[in-house]
Amino acid sequence: MRVLITSGGTTEKIDSVRGITNFATGTLGKLLAEQFLAANHTVILLAGLTALVPDAHPKLTIIKISDVTSLISNITKWTPLSDVCVHTMAVSDYKPVYMTDLDTVKQTPNLTDLLSKHNLEHKISSQQDYQVLFLKKTPKVIAMIKDLNPTIILIGFKLMVDVPTEQLIQTARQSLMTNKADYILANDLNTISETQHLGLLVSQHDIMEVQSKHDIAALIVSKSEETYDNYHDCRNR
Amino acid sequence: MRVLITSGGTTEKIDSVRGITNFATGTLGKLLAEQFLAANHTVILLAGLTALVPDAHPKLTIIKISDVTSLISNITKWTPLSDVCVHTMAVSDYKPVYMTDLDTVKQTPNLTDLLSKHNLEHKISSQQDYQVLFLKKTPKVIAMIKDLNPTIILIGFKLMVDVPTEQLIQTARQSLMTNKADYILANDLNTISETQHLGLLVSQHDIMEVQSKHDIAALIVSKSEETYDNYHDCRNR
Repeated sequence: MRVLITSGGTTEKIDSVRGITNFATGTLGKLLAEQFLAANHTVILLAGLTALVPDAHPKLTIIKISDVTSLISNITKWTPLSDVCVHTMAVSDYKPVYMTDLDTVKQTPNLTDLLSKHNLEHKISSQQDYQVLFLKKTPKVIAMIKDLNPTIILIGFKLMVDVPTEQLIQTARQSLMTNKADYILANDLNTISETQHLGLLVSQHDIMEVQSKHDIAALIVSKSEETYDNYHDCRNR
Repeated sequence: MRVLITSGGTTEKIDSVRGITNFATGTLGKLLAEQFLAANHTVILLAGLTALVPDAHPKLTIIKISDVTSLISNITKWTPLSDVCVHTMAVSDYKPVYMTDLDTVKQTPNLTDLLSKHNLEHKISSQQDYQVLFLKKTPKVIAMIKDLNPTIILIGFKLMVDVPTEQLIQTARQSLMTNKADYILANDLNTISETQHLGLLVSQHDIMEVQSKHDIAALIVSKSEETYDNYHDCRNR
Protein backbone atom coordinates (compact mmCIF):
# COMPACT_ATOMS: atom_id res chain seq x y z
CA MET A 1 0.00 0.00 0.00
CA ARG A 2 1.02 3.64 -0.46
CA VAL A 3 0.52 5.31 2.92
CA LEU A 4 0.32 9.05 3.54
CA ILE A 5 1.03 10.04 7.16
CA THR A 6 0.86 13.54 8.64
CA SER A 7 2.64 14.17 11.93
CA GLY A 8 3.81 16.86 14.34
CA GLY A 9 2.15 20.27 14.41
CA THR A 10 1.75 23.28 12.13
CA THR A 11 2.83 26.82 12.99
CA GLU A 12 1.11 29.93 11.65
CA LYS A 13 3.34 33.01 11.49
CA ILE A 14 2.36 36.20 13.31
CA ASP A 15 5.43 37.96 11.86
CA SER A 16 8.98 36.96 10.87
CA VAL A 17 9.96 35.96 14.39
CA ARG A 18 6.77 34.72 16.10
CA GLY A 19 4.01 32.22 15.41
CA ILE A 20 1.10 30.26 16.86
CA THR A 21 1.91 26.61 17.11
CA ASN A 22 0.09 23.40 17.98
CA PHE A 23 2.01 21.18 20.36
CA ALA A 24 2.98 17.78 18.92
CA THR A 25 6.25 15.90 19.05
CA GLY A 26 5.59 13.66 16.05
CA THR A 27 6.41 10.55 18.11
CA LEU A 28 3.29 8.68 17.02
CA GLY A 29 3.70 9.64 13.34
CA LYS A 30 7.29 8.38 13.47
CA LEU A 31 6.18 5.06 15.00
CA LEU A 32 3.42 4.70 12.41
CA ALA A 33 5.85 5.35 9.55
CA GLU A 34 8.31 2.80 10.98
CA GLN A 35 5.63 0.13 11.39
CA PHE A 36 4.14 0.65 7.91
CA LEU A 37 7.69 0.46 6.46
CA ALA A 38 8.40 -2.72 8.45
CA ALA A 39 5.26 -4.23 6.88
CA ASN A 40 6.75 -3.38 3.46
CA HIS A 41 4.48 -0.47 2.55
CA THR A 42 5.56 2.81 0.94
CA VAL A 43 5.31 5.89 3.18
CA ILE A 44 5.04 9.62 2.47
CA LEU A 45 5.46 11.45 5.79
CA LEU A 46 4.30 15.08 5.96
CA ALA A 47 6.06 16.20 9.15
CA GLY A 48 5.91 19.47 11.11
CA LEU A 49 9.18 21.43 11.27
CA THR A 50 10.15 20.20 14.74
CA ALA A 51 8.53 16.74 14.49
CA LEU A 52 10.59 13.64 15.19
CA VAL A 53 11.11 11.63 11.99
CA PRO A 54 12.32 8.07 11.28
CA ASP A 55 15.78 7.27 9.91
CA ALA A 56 16.14 7.25 6.13
CA HIS A 57 14.58 4.24 4.36
CA PRO A 58 14.32 3.44 0.63
CA LYS A 59 10.50 3.38 0.81
CA LEU A 60 10.15 6.57 2.90
CA THR A 61 9.78 10.16 1.66
CA ILE A 62 9.77 12.92 4.30
CA ILE A 63 8.33 16.34 3.44
CA LYS A 64 8.61 19.16 5.98
CA ILE A 65 5.42 21.14 6.58
CA SER A 66 5.43 24.64 8.06
CA ASP A 67 1.83 25.86 8.06
CA VAL A 68 -1.71 24.94 6.99
CA THR A 69 -1.17 26.34 3.48
CA SER A 70 1.83 24.08 2.92
CA LEU A 71 -0.08 21.13 4.42
CA ILE A 72 -3.03 21.68 2.07
CA SER A 73 -0.82 21.91 -1.00
CA ASN A 74 0.91 18.63 -0.08
CA ILE A 75 -2.33 16.88 0.87
CA THR A 76 -3.77 17.93 -2.50
CA LYS A 77 -0.75 16.48 -4.26
CA TRP A 78 -0.33 13.20 -2.37
CA THR A 79 -3.86 12.11 -1.41
CA PRO A 80 -4.85 11.03 -4.95
CA LEU A 81 -1.66 8.91 -5.10
CA SER A 82 -2.23 7.11 -1.78
CA ASP A 83 -4.25 4.08 -0.59
CA VAL A 84 -4.26 5.05 3.09
CA CYS A 85 -4.06 8.39 4.91
CA VAL A 86 -3.28 8.54 8.63
CA HIS A 87 -3.76 12.14 9.68
CA THR A 88 -2.18 12.53 13.13
CA MET A 89 -1.03 16.12 12.63
CA ALA A 90 -2.05 18.81 15.12
CA VAL A 91 -3.22 21.38 12.58
CA SER A 92 -3.58 25.05 13.54
CA ASP A 93 -7.31 25.77 13.60
CA TYR A 94 -6.75 29.54 13.59
CA LYS A 95 -4.25 31.70 11.78
CA PRO A 96 -3.22 35.28 12.59
CA VAL A 97 -4.89 38.04 10.61
CA TYR A 98 -3.73 41.21 12.33
CA MET A 99 -2.01 42.18 15.56
CA THR A 100 -2.14 45.64 17.08
CA ASP A 101 -2.02 47.34 20.46
CA LEU A 102 -4.98 47.46 22.83
CA ASP A 103 -5.47 51.24 22.56
CA THR A 104 -5.89 51.03 18.79
CA VAL A 105 -8.50 48.30 19.24
CA LYS A 106 -10.35 50.38 21.84
CA GLN A 107 -10.43 53.35 19.44
CA THR A 108 -11.77 51.34 16.50
CA PRO A 109 -15.58 51.71 16.40
CA ASN A 110 -16.15 48.67 14.19
CA LEU A 111 -13.75 45.83 15.00
CA THR A 112 -14.59 44.10 11.71
CA ASP A 113 -12.51 46.82 10.03
CA LEU A 114 -9.40 45.36 11.66
CA LEU A 115 -9.97 41.99 9.98
CA SER A 116 -9.01 43.39 6.60
CA LYS A 117 -5.77 44.90 7.90
CA HIS A 118 -2.36 43.28 7.67
CA ASN A 119 0.84 43.84 9.60
CA LEU A 120 3.31 45.46 7.22
CA GLU A 121 6.19 45.49 9.71
CA HIS A 122 8.46 42.43 9.73
CA LYS A 123 8.70 42.31 13.50
CA ILE A 124 5.76 43.73 15.42
CA SER A 125 6.87 46.26 18.04
CA SER A 126 7.02 45.07 21.63
CA GLN A 127 6.68 48.50 23.26
CA GLN A 128 3.02 48.34 24.31
CA ASP A 129 1.84 46.65 27.50
CA TYR A 130 -0.97 44.82 25.74
CA GLN A 131 -1.40 43.54 22.19
CA VAL A 132 -4.47 42.10 20.55
CA LEU A 133 -4.24 39.37 17.95
CA PHE A 134 -7.15 38.71 15.58
CA LEU A 135 -7.31 35.13 14.30
CA LYS A 136 -9.29 33.52 11.49
CA LYS A 137 -10.41 29.89 11.24
CA THR A 138 -8.36 27.75 8.86
CA PRO A 139 -9.94 25.22 6.47
CA LYS A 140 -10.52 21.74 7.99
CA VAL A 141 -7.87 19.66 6.25
CA ILE A 142 -9.30 16.26 7.25
CA ALA A 143 -12.59 17.15 5.53
CA MET A 144 -10.81 17.55 2.18
CA ILE A 145 -9.24 14.12 2.00
CA LYS A 146 -12.14 11.92 0.83
CA ASP A 147 -13.08 14.55 -1.75
CA LEU A 148 -9.56 14.33 -3.17
CA ASN A 149 -9.65 10.51 -3.21
CA PRO A 150 -13.00 8.82 -2.42
CA THR A 151 -11.43 5.33 -2.18
CA ILE A 152 -8.62 6.26 0.22
CA ILE A 153 -8.77 4.65 3.67
CA LEU A 154 -8.85 7.58 6.07
CA ILE A 155 -7.78 7.39 9.70
CA GLY A 156 -8.20 10.63 11.61
CA PHE A 157 -7.28 11.67 15.14
CA LYS A 158 -9.34 13.53 17.69
CA LEU A 159 -7.51 14.94 20.70
CA MET A 160 -9.64 16.17 23.56
CA VAL A 161 -8.70 17.29 27.06
CA ASP A 162 -10.23 15.93 30.28
CA VAL A 163 -13.55 14.62 28.92
CA PRO A 164 -15.54 11.48 29.83
CA THR A 165 -15.09 8.39 27.61
CA GLU A 166 -18.66 8.72 26.33
CA GLN A 167 -17.91 12.19 25.00
CA LEU A 168 -14.68 10.97 23.36
CA ILE A 169 -16.64 8.26 21.53
CA GLN A 170 -19.48 10.58 20.55
CA THR A 171 -17.03 13.19 19.18
CA ALA A 172 -15.15 10.48 17.27
CA ARG A 173 -18.44 9.19 15.74
CA GLN A 174 -19.33 12.74 14.74
CA SER A 175 -15.93 13.16 13.08
CA LEU A 176 -16.35 9.79 11.24
CA MET A 177 -19.55 11.12 9.66
CA THR A 178 -18.48 14.70 8.98
CA ASN A 179 -15.14 13.78 7.44
CA LYS A 180 -16.17 10.44 5.87
CA ALA A 181 -13.34 8.82 7.81
CA ASP A 182 -12.99 5.04 8.17
CA TYR A 183 -11.50 5.24 11.65
CA ILE A 184 -10.99 7.95 14.24
CA LEU A 185 -8.45 7.49 17.01
CA ALA A 186 -9.93 9.38 19.94
CA ASN A 187 -7.59 10.30 22.77
CA ASP A 188 -7.45 12.54 25.82
CA LEU A 189 -4.38 14.62 26.71
CA ASN A 190 -4.88 13.62 30.36
CA THR A 191 -4.21 9.94 29.61
CA ILE A 192 -1.12 10.54 27.45
CA SER A 193 2.32 10.45 29.04
CA GLU A 194 5.81 9.20 28.18
CA THR A 195 4.89 5.67 29.28
CA GLN A 196 1.22 5.34 28.25
CA HIS A 197 -1.12 6.59 25.55
CA LEU A 198 -4.71 5.50 25.96
CA GLY A 199 -6.67 5.54 22.73
CA LEU A 200 -9.98 4.39 21.28
CA LEU A 201 -9.98 3.44 17.61
CA VAL A 202 -13.57 4.12 16.63
CA SER A 203 -15.19 2.92 13.41
CA GLN A 204 -18.84 2.97 12.42
CA HIS A 205 -19.55 -0.36 14.13
CA ASP A 206 -16.63 -0.92 16.45
CA ILE A 207 -14.54 0.55 19.26
CA MET A 208 -11.08 -0.85 19.98
CA GLU A 209 -9.13 0.17 23.07
CA VAL A 210 -5.34 0.54 23.10
CA GLN A 211 -2.86 1.45 25.84
CA SER A 212 0.35 2.72 24.22
CA LYS A 213 1.67 4.60 21.18
CA HIS A 214 3.23 1.38 19.96
CA ASP A 215 -0.11 -0.46 20.13
CA ILE A 216 -1.96 2.44 18.49
CA ALA A 217 0.47 2.30 15.55
CA ALA A 218 0.25 -1.52 15.32
CA LEU A 219 -3.56 -1.46 15.36
CA ILE A 220 -3.72 1.25 12.69
CA VAL A 221 -1.36 -0.73 10.44
CA SER A 222 -3.37 -3.95 10.79
CA LYS A 223 -6.78 -2.23 10.39
CA SER A 224 -5.52 -0.36 7.30
CA GLU A 225 -4.30 -3.61 5.74
CA GLU A 226 -7.54 -5.42 6.61
CA THR A 227 -9.71 -2.62 5.18
CA TYR A 228 -7.56 -2.41 2.06
CA ASP A 229 -7.76 -6.20 1.50
CA ASN A 230 -11.55 -6.28 2.03
CA TYR A 231 -12.02 -3.40 -0.32
CA HIS A 232 -9.88 -4.90 -3.06
CA ASP A 233 -11.36 -8.40 -2.60
CA CYS A 234 -14.83 -6.93 -3.06
CA ARG A 235 -13.79 -5.11 -6.20
CA ASN A 236 -12.30 -8.29 -7.66
CA ARG A 237 -15.29 -10.54 -7.04
CA MET B 1 34.96 30.29 33.64
CA ARG B 2 31.41 29.23 34.42
CA VAL B 3 29.31 30.16 31.40
CA LEU B 4 25.52 30.44 31.32
CA ILE B 5 24.06 30.20 27.79
CA THR B 6 20.39 30.55 26.82
CA SER B 7 19.32 29.22 23.43
CA GLY B 8 16.32 28.36 21.27
CA GLY B 9 12.94 30.00 21.86
CA THR B 10 10.26 30.10 24.54
CA THR B 11 6.61 29.15 24.02
CA GLU B 12 3.73 30.68 25.96
CA LYS B 13 0.68 28.44 26.23
CA ILE B 14 -2.71 29.65 24.98
CA ASP B 15 -4.33 26.43 26.22
CA SER B 16 -3.28 22.79 26.62
CA VAL B 17 -2.75 22.24 22.89
CA ARG B 18 -1.70 25.65 21.46
CA GLY B 19 0.91 28.29 22.19
CA ILE B 20 2.72 31.36 20.89
CA THR B 21 6.30 30.59 20.06
CA ASN B 22 9.41 32.51 19.03
CA PHE B 23 11.27 30.92 16.14
CA ALA B 24 14.80 29.76 17.00
CA THR B 25 16.59 26.53 16.20
CA GLY B 26 19.21 26.79 18.94
CA THR B 27 22.03 26.27 16.40
CA LEU B 28 24.08 29.22 17.62
CA GLY B 29 23.59 28.34 21.31
CA LYS B 30 24.77 24.79 20.57
CA LEU B 31 27.90 26.08 18.77
CA LEU B 32 28.63 28.50 21.62
CA ALA B 33 28.31 25.71 24.20
CA GLU B 34 30.62 23.46 22.16
CA GLN B 35 33.26 26.17 21.74
CA PHE B 36 33.22 27.20 25.43
CA LEU B 37 33.53 23.50 26.37
CA ALA B 38 36.41 23.04 23.91
CA ALA B 39 38.17 25.95 25.67
CA ASN B 40 37.75 24.03 28.95
CA HIS B 41 35.01 26.18 30.50
CA THR B 42 31.95 24.89 32.39
CA VAL B 43 28.61 25.43 30.61
CA ILE B 44 25.02 25.62 31.84
CA LEU B 45 22.75 25.62 28.77
CA LEU B 46 19.16 26.80 29.21
CA ALA B 47 17.59 25.47 26.00
CA GLY B 48 14.10 25.85 24.52
CA LEU B 49 12.08 22.64 24.20
CA THR B 50 12.83 22.11 20.50
CA ALA B 51 16.32 23.67 20.50
CA LEU B 52 19.28 21.72 19.14
CA VAL B 53 21.68 20.81 21.95
CA PRO B 54 25.28 19.51 22.04
CA ASP B 55 26.20 15.92 22.84
CA ALA B 56 26.68 15.06 26.51
CA HIS B 57 29.93 16.38 28.05
CA PRO B 58 31.22 16.16 31.65
CA LYS B 59 31.33 19.97 31.98
CA LEU B 60 27.90 20.59 30.38
CA THR B 61 24.50 20.81 32.11
CA ILE B 62 21.42 21.17 29.87
CA ILE B 63 18.17 22.49 31.35
CA LYS B 64 15.04 22.54 29.20
CA ILE B 65 13.05 25.77 29.25
CA SER B 66 9.38 25.94 28.25
CA ASP B 67 8.25 29.51 28.86
CA VAL B 68 9.35 32.89 30.25
CA THR B 69 8.41 31.90 33.81
CA SER B 70 10.67 28.85 33.70
CA LEU B 71 13.43 30.94 32.07
CA ILE B 72 13.26 33.57 34.83
CA SER B 73 13.38 30.99 37.60
CA ASN B 74 16.49 29.39 36.04
CA ILE B 75 18.16 32.73 35.29
CA THR B 76 17.59 33.72 38.92
CA LYS B 77 19.19 30.49 40.09
CA TRP B 78 22.20 30.33 37.74
CA THR B 79 23.21 33.97 37.10
CA PRO B 80 24.77 34.49 40.56
CA LEU B 81 26.81 31.29 40.02
CA SER B 82 28.19 32.29 36.59
CA ASP B 83 31.06 34.43 35.29
CA VAL B 84 29.61 34.92 31.79
CA CYS B 85 26.07 34.95 30.41
CA VAL B 86 25.42 34.66 26.68
CA HIS B 87 21.73 35.29 26.19
CA THR B 88 20.86 34.15 22.64
CA MET B 89 17.34 32.93 23.45
CA ALA B 90 14.37 34.26 21.49
CA VAL B 91 12.18 35.09 24.47
CA SER B 92 8.42 35.58 24.07
CA ASP B 93 7.77 39.29 24.58
CA TYR B 94 4.02 38.72 25.01
CA LYS B 95 2.06 36.00 26.75
CA PRO B 96 -1.61 35.10 26.29
CA VAL B 97 -4.07 36.50 28.80
CA TYR B 98 -7.45 35.58 27.37
CA MET B 99 -8.87 34.27 24.09
CA THR B 100 -12.48 34.62 23.07
CA ASP B 101 -14.61 34.94 19.94
CA LEU B 102 -14.98 38.19 18.01
CA ASP B 103 -18.68 38.62 18.83
CA THR B 104 -17.97 38.56 22.56
CA VAL B 105 -15.28 41.21 22.10
CA LYS B 106 -17.66 43.39 20.04
CA GLN B 107 -20.28 43.14 22.79
CA THR B 108 -17.90 44.09 25.58
CA PRO B 109 -18.18 47.86 26.24
CA ASN B 110 -14.87 48.15 28.08
CA LEU B 111 -12.20 45.87 26.63
CA THR B 112 -10.04 46.27 29.74
CA ASP B 113 -12.57 43.99 31.48
CA LEU B 114 -11.38 41.11 29.29
CA LEU B 115 -7.80 41.45 30.57
CA SER B 116 -8.80 40.06 33.97
CA LYS B 117 -10.52 37.00 32.46
CA HIS B 118 -8.94 33.58 32.06
CA ASN B 119 -9.81 30.68 29.82
CA LEU B 120 -11.15 27.91 32.04
CA GLU B 121 -11.54 25.37 29.23
CA HIS B 122 -8.56 23.12 28.52
CA LYS B 123 -8.93 23.39 24.78
CA ILE B 124 -10.53 26.56 23.44
CA SER B 125 -13.38 25.80 21.04
CA SER B 126 -12.67 26.11 17.33
CA GLN B 127 -16.26 26.67 16.21
CA GLN B 128 -16.18 30.43 15.65
CA ASP B 129 -14.87 32.03 12.44
CA TYR B 130 -12.79 34.59 14.31
CA GLN B 131 -11.08 34.54 17.67
CA VAL B 132 -9.37 37.38 19.50
CA LEU B 133 -6.33 36.80 21.69
CA PHE B 134 -5.32 39.38 24.29
CA LEU B 135 -1.62 39.37 25.12
CA LYS B 136 0.38 40.96 27.91
CA LYS B 137 4.02 42.04 27.83
CA THR B 138 6.43 39.71 29.64
CA PRO B 139 9.29 40.97 31.85
CA LYS B 140 12.54 41.75 29.97
CA VAL B 141 14.81 38.90 31.06
CA ILE B 142 18.06 40.45 29.81
CA ALA B 143 17.45 43.50 32.05
CA MET B 144 17.47 41.30 35.17
CA ILE B 145 20.88 39.72 34.68
CA LYS B 146 23.25 42.46 35.92
CA ASP B 147 20.99 43.07 38.92
CA LEU B 148 21.33 39.39 39.83
CA ASN B 149 25.11 39.48 39.39
CA PRO B 150 26.76 42.88 38.82
CA THR B 151 30.15 41.36 37.93
CA ILE B 152 28.88 38.88 35.31
CA ILE B 153 30.03 39.47 31.73
CA LEU B 154 26.81 39.86 29.78
CA ILE B 155 26.50 39.26 26.05
CA GLY B 156 23.03 39.92 24.65
CA PHE B 157 21.52 39.44 21.19
CA LYS B 158 19.40 41.83 19.21
CA LEU B 159 17.58 40.39 16.21
CA MET B 160 16.01 42.87 13.82
CA VAL B 161 14.43 42.41 10.40
CA ASP B 162 15.38 44.34 7.25
CA VAL B 163 16.93 47.44 8.82
CA PRO B 164 19.97 49.54 7.78
CA THR B 165 23.31 48.80 9.51
CA GLU B 166 23.21 52.18 11.26
CA GLN B 167 19.93 51.26 12.93
CA LEU B 168 21.31 47.86 13.97
CA ILE B 169 24.27 49.57 15.66
CA GLN B 170 22.14 52.25 17.29
CA THR B 171 19.69 49.65 18.68
CA ALA B 172 22.60 47.54 19.95
CA ARG B 173 24.14 50.60 21.70
CA GLN B 174 20.76 51.38 23.25
CA SER B 175 20.51 47.79 24.52
CA LEU B 176 24.07 47.95 25.94
CA MET B 177 23.02 50.92 28.07
CA THR B 178 19.54 49.79 29.07
CA ASN B 179 20.60 46.28 30.03
CA LYS B 180 24.12 47.09 31.27
CA ALA B 181 25.43 44.54 28.79
CA ASP B 182 29.11 44.23 27.91
CA TYR B 183 28.45 43.20 24.32
CA ILE B 184 25.41 43.04 22.07
CA LEU B 185 25.45 40.85 18.98
CA ALA B 186 23.23 42.71 16.53
CA ASN B 187 21.91 40.75 13.56
CA ASP B 188 19.29 40.99 10.84
CA LEU B 189 17.05 38.07 9.86
CA ASN B 190 17.58 39.02 6.19
CA THR B 191 21.30 38.24 6.37
CA ILE B 192 20.94 34.92 8.19
CA SER B 193 20.77 31.70 6.17
CA GLU B 194 22.07 28.14 6.42
CA THR B 195 25.42 29.18 5.00
CA GLN B 196 25.96 32.69 6.41
CA HIS B 197 25.10 34.66 9.52
CA LEU B 198 26.21 38.30 9.44
CA GLY B 199 26.60 39.82 12.86
CA LEU B 200 28.01 42.91 14.55
CA LEU B 201 29.42 42.45 18.04
CA VAL B 202 28.94 45.89 19.55
CA SER B 203 30.58 47.08 22.76
CA GLN B 204 30.73 50.58 24.19
CA HIS B 205 33.82 51.51 22.17
CA ASP B 206 34.03 48.90 19.46
CA ILE B 207 32.17 47.18 16.61
CA MET B 208 33.39 43.83 15.28
CA GLU B 209 31.94 42.30 12.12
CA VAL B 210 31.50 38.53 11.67
CA GLN B 211 30.20 36.44 8.78
CA SER B 212 29.10 33.05 10.14
CA LYS B 213 27.61 31.35 13.21
CA HIS B 214 30.95 29.65 13.80
CA ASP B 215 32.80 32.98 13.81
CA ILE B 216 30.17 34.61 16.02
CA ALA B 217 30.64 31.82 18.58
CA ALA B 218 34.46 32.00 18.35
CA LEU B 219 34.48 35.79 18.79
CA ILE B 220 32.13 35.61 21.79
CA VAL B 221 34.35 32.98 23.46
CA SER B 222 37.52 35.02 22.94
CA LYS B 223 35.93 38.35 23.97
CA SER B 224 34.47 36.72 27.10
CA GLU B 225 37.88 35.31 28.06
CA GLU B 226 39.61 38.64 27.38
CA THR B 227 37.04 40.60 29.41
CA TYR B 228 37.20 38.07 32.24
CA ASP B 229 41.02 38.21 32.33
CA ASN B 230 41.11 42.04 32.26
CA TYR B 231 38.55 42.22 34.99
CA HIS B 232 40.34 39.74 37.24
CA ASP B 233 43.77 41.28 36.52
CA CYS B 234 42.41 44.66 37.61
CA ARG B 235 41.01 43.25 40.80
CA ASN B 236 44.32 41.58 41.64
CA ARG B 237 46.46 44.67 41.10
